[in-house]
Amino acid sequence: MSQKREDFSKWYIDTIQKADLLDYTPVRGCIAFKPDGYELWEHIKEEMDSRFKETGHRNAYFPMLIPETFFQKEKDHIEGFSPELPWVTEAAGEKLEERLALRPTSETMIGHLYSKWIKSYRDLPVLINQWANVFRWEKKTLPFIRTSEFLWQEGHTAHVDEEDARKETMQMLNIYKEVVEGLLAIPVYDGEKTPSERFAGAVDTYSIEAMMKDGKAVQAGTSHYLGTKFAEAFDIKYLTRENKHENVHTTSWGTSTRLIGSVIMVHGDEQGLVLPPRIAPTQVVLIPVGPWKKNPAIIDKLDEIFVALKVKGIRVRLDDSDQSPGYKFNEWELKGVPVRIELGPRDLEGNQVMMKARDEREKLVVSLDTVVESIEKELNTMQTRLFEKAKAFLAENSHTHLDTIDQLNQHLADAEKKGHIPGWVLAGWCGDDACETNVKDKTKFTTRNIPFNPPQTKHTCINCGNEAKHTVWFARAY
Amino acid sequence: MSQKREDFSKWYIDTIQKADLLDYTPVRGCIAFKPDGYELWEHIKEEMDSRFKETGHRNAYFPMLIPETFFQKEKDHIEGFSPELPWVTEAAGEKLEERLALRPTSETMIGHLYSKWIKSYRDLPVLINQWANVFRWEKKTLPFIRTSEFLWQEGHTAHVDEEDARKETMQMLNIYKEVVEGLLAIPVYDGEKTPSERFAGAVDTYSIEAMMKDGKAVQAGTSHYLGTKFAEAFDIKYLTRENKHENVHTTSWGTSTRLIGSVIMVHGDEQGLVLPPRIAPTQVVLIPVGPWKKNPAIIDKLDEIFVALKVKGIRVRLDDSDQSPGYKFNEWELKGVPVRIELGPRDLEGNQVMMKARDEREKLVVSLDTVVESIEKELNTMQTRLFEKAKAFLAENSHTHLDTIDQLNQHLADAEKKGHIPGWVLAGWCGDDACETNVKDKTKFTTRNIPFNPPQTKHTCINCGNEAKHTVWFARAY
Ligand SMILES: [Zn+2]
Ligand SMILES: [Zn+2]
Repeated sequence: MSQKREDFSKWYIDTIQKADLLDYTPVRGCIAFKPDGYELWEHIKEEMDSRFKETGHRNAYFPMLIPETFFQKEKDHIEGFSPELPWVTEAAGEKLEERLALRPTSETMIGHLYSKWIKSYRDLPVLINQWANVFRWEKKTLPFIRTSEFLWQEGHTAHVDEEDARKETMQMLNIYKEVVEGLLAIPVYDGEKTPSERFAGAVDTYSIEAMMKDGKAVQAGTSHYLGTKFAEAFDIKYLTRENKHENVHTTSWGTSTRLIGSVIMVHGDEQGLVLPPRIAPTQVVLIPVGPWKKNPAIIDKLDEIFVALKVKGIRVRLDDSDQSPGYKFNEWELKGVPVRIELGPRDLEGNQVMMKARDEREKLVVSLDTVVESIEKELNTMQTRLFEKAKAFLAENSHTHLDTIDQLNQHLADAEKKGHIPGWVLAGWCGDDACETNVKDKTKFTTRNIPFNPPQTKHTCINCGNEAKHTVWFARAY
Repeated sequence: MSQKREDFSKWYIDTIQKADLLDYTPVRGCIAFKPDGYELWEHIKEEMDSRFKETGHRNAYFPMLIPETFFQKEKDHIEGFSPELPWVTEAAGEKLEERLALRPTSETMIGHLYSKWIKSYRDLPVLINQWANVFRWEKKTLPFIRTSEFLWQEGHTAHVDEEDARKETMQMLNIYKEVVEGLLAIPVYDGEKTPSERFAGAVDTYSIEAMMKDGKAVQAGTSHYLGTKFAEAFDIKYLTRENKHENVHTTSWGTSTRLIGSVIMVHGDEQGLVLPPRIAPTQVVLIPVGPWKKNPAIIDKLDEIFVALKVKGIRVRLDDSDQSPGYKFNEWELKGVPVRIELGPRDLEGNQVMMKARDEREKLVVSLDTVVESIEKELNTMQTRLFEKAKAFLAENSHTHLDTIDQLNQHLADAEKKGHIPGWVLAGWCGDDACETNVKDKTKFTTRNIPFNPPQTKHTCINCGNEAKHTVWFARAY
């Protein structure tokens, strides 16, 4: 697969289209999630939701429309979001007195309500999550990765003090890491964002960052410690055990449908989508081959396998349409179905089927006596294999030997020449905004995060050569 | 409980507030669903969603913003909805070229997309559902029942012919009936809407109608046969087996968060909320009584019961806060928790607990040896009991002996005098719009539906006395 920029974009768009995951609409940047695209989100949602509930969170739902005055209460927040807001200005034939924004995120509405809900330390912590649609009217859009309307979850919690809020911030980042690695088979680097990349209104932002096959980064989840900023802006105070009024400390954390885009860009290949078994809408497809119509025993046997898999909770399809096997193979490969089973007259005679994993070249011969167990095992193996492959790819393209901007530029030129991806670079940073900006201007590499567990510690700033305060991942990013 | 109009409204608002189900916001008619309110919706959603999937439907997600021109394609549809639409007119600092409506329902956007997705009979039926927020900027709002933004599901299907589409319309109405009766313990009358009450753009609309404790009706779910109206408006054609271009026949069907309002108004009582066990966020509350703090064995025993219930998947809470038992009893009754277990020193000595069902006056003595089984049984019994009570109430207040508008007026006057609720009236209707309108103007009774299984058949029109074409339920409605 070509990883050159234009080629990769084209591949991404084509793959999505051929896998039938979404459609475009006449509303700028707003996409329709078709059933196979939406089901990926449903599986992500189920897994996240059960983790949130296990850790004591409950779901709620807040109004989508947010009064303009709410935004103005937190200075950084309005500065960060106002360029991207769509506004409702009229309703039911009348002009509204105050414009209402379509929520880009709900800190303000929730801040307003928490100030009514929280009275005493007995009310804390408040641990609430919301599944919702949100809007950011961005100039450049890319399916799943950056759209005007998207789906997400946003957690909003309030705590008695900084320690408790910071613990929550980290707990949720860890849940994100576990779900993205475990369910989506996408390895990530977790760490802290630099100030310039922080969420508008956060004291500290933490992220998990994933590497796409073109070497660019996707921020796959963020968790923010908001300190008392929103508490001050919205007057969210509580009475302590000692009868004093204190500001609560709040957090927020989110993941979105851009995770779907990441799955495609991490696992896909020349033949199309490759889906990790745990989120695949169809995990196994059964296809009769050879002159199967003359031999009803073939469909009978496939029906039998179908039922046996179904009973085990495996998402299986039997493709008995009139198309040729070759056509079917191609179609189900485009859709990224993890395991394909072929059964023809000769296989039946030999008491066997052919099994093909989507990400492997060779077909395997599997005995009909143990076909269900073999499929189950292959689904598990493939889930692990995809993760290990992505992990190896990440390691291979994580460069830790580039310590100056000249070395980085040389690396980029070499990569360009060889047709390699530039990957990510671990480098020192003095903490000066100007150095970060200069790296960005010269190389388009931005700071991804300051990893919690860097493979090594850097001692000099990649830009100015002064002492490094932080060891940072730099990369081009979506 | 007083069923007078103002008293009932006040009771409803108070009950919701005390049960902590929602909060109001500064955005007109937009409410925040608090965790206990939202969880009711989650349980409804789970049950509906699994029924939809069992019957071959898949979820998808469509853009929330709909171009103004889309609405204008179906004449009845724009007429019906335009008075209630909120509009986005600017985004990211610029005025939009075309206004975008916040969806009140998605037939138009989906019609546009189905015309791209459907090419041949092989693509049919298309069976898609969407869970989403929708907007109707209505003048009078009432929590859960009528709000500017609400949550719902909307199914949209396309079929080769009328027969198949009508089968779908009925299938979904039946699923609604089963879920509303089985899960929410609300008995309903199913039937066809009169033309004046049809969905804007439908050929036929069917509904299930539920009776609230003040005798008013709530339309609890609707299913529409749309014929080829949207196919014509959006050019949704398919190639038949015979190679001819034909219009598809479409359906749509929806239920919303107004079901939560119905649960409250059907089962609630003077002490507050009464929740059917199957949707209660907390099904069982365990409360230590007497001098329990001096006797750790009491909390130990309650912990044991807690774990045993949890293992069975029962949603249980242990209230070991410092409040008095009386305070706790009252609080959990307000929240409608189905079963309360009390355990004090004497109970422990006697190897028993006290069990109280939310809807019964008497407490029961239950042996500690079988307490989990007793609770499980009581949850089931209560679910059935609530349904039976509501069914008796519905039957009692369904009047079938009023055949003229004079008799209806007399009945209303009598009810008013006695402080009874007017209930519903089964009456004949000649089919003339003017008769329907006259009944409405004179009595505020509107046609609810033409029941599939009327308790009897009426032969004369309640208004004009001419031959009745239909036997209809008339009622005041939310
Ligand atoms: Zn520097
Ligand atoms: Zn008449």
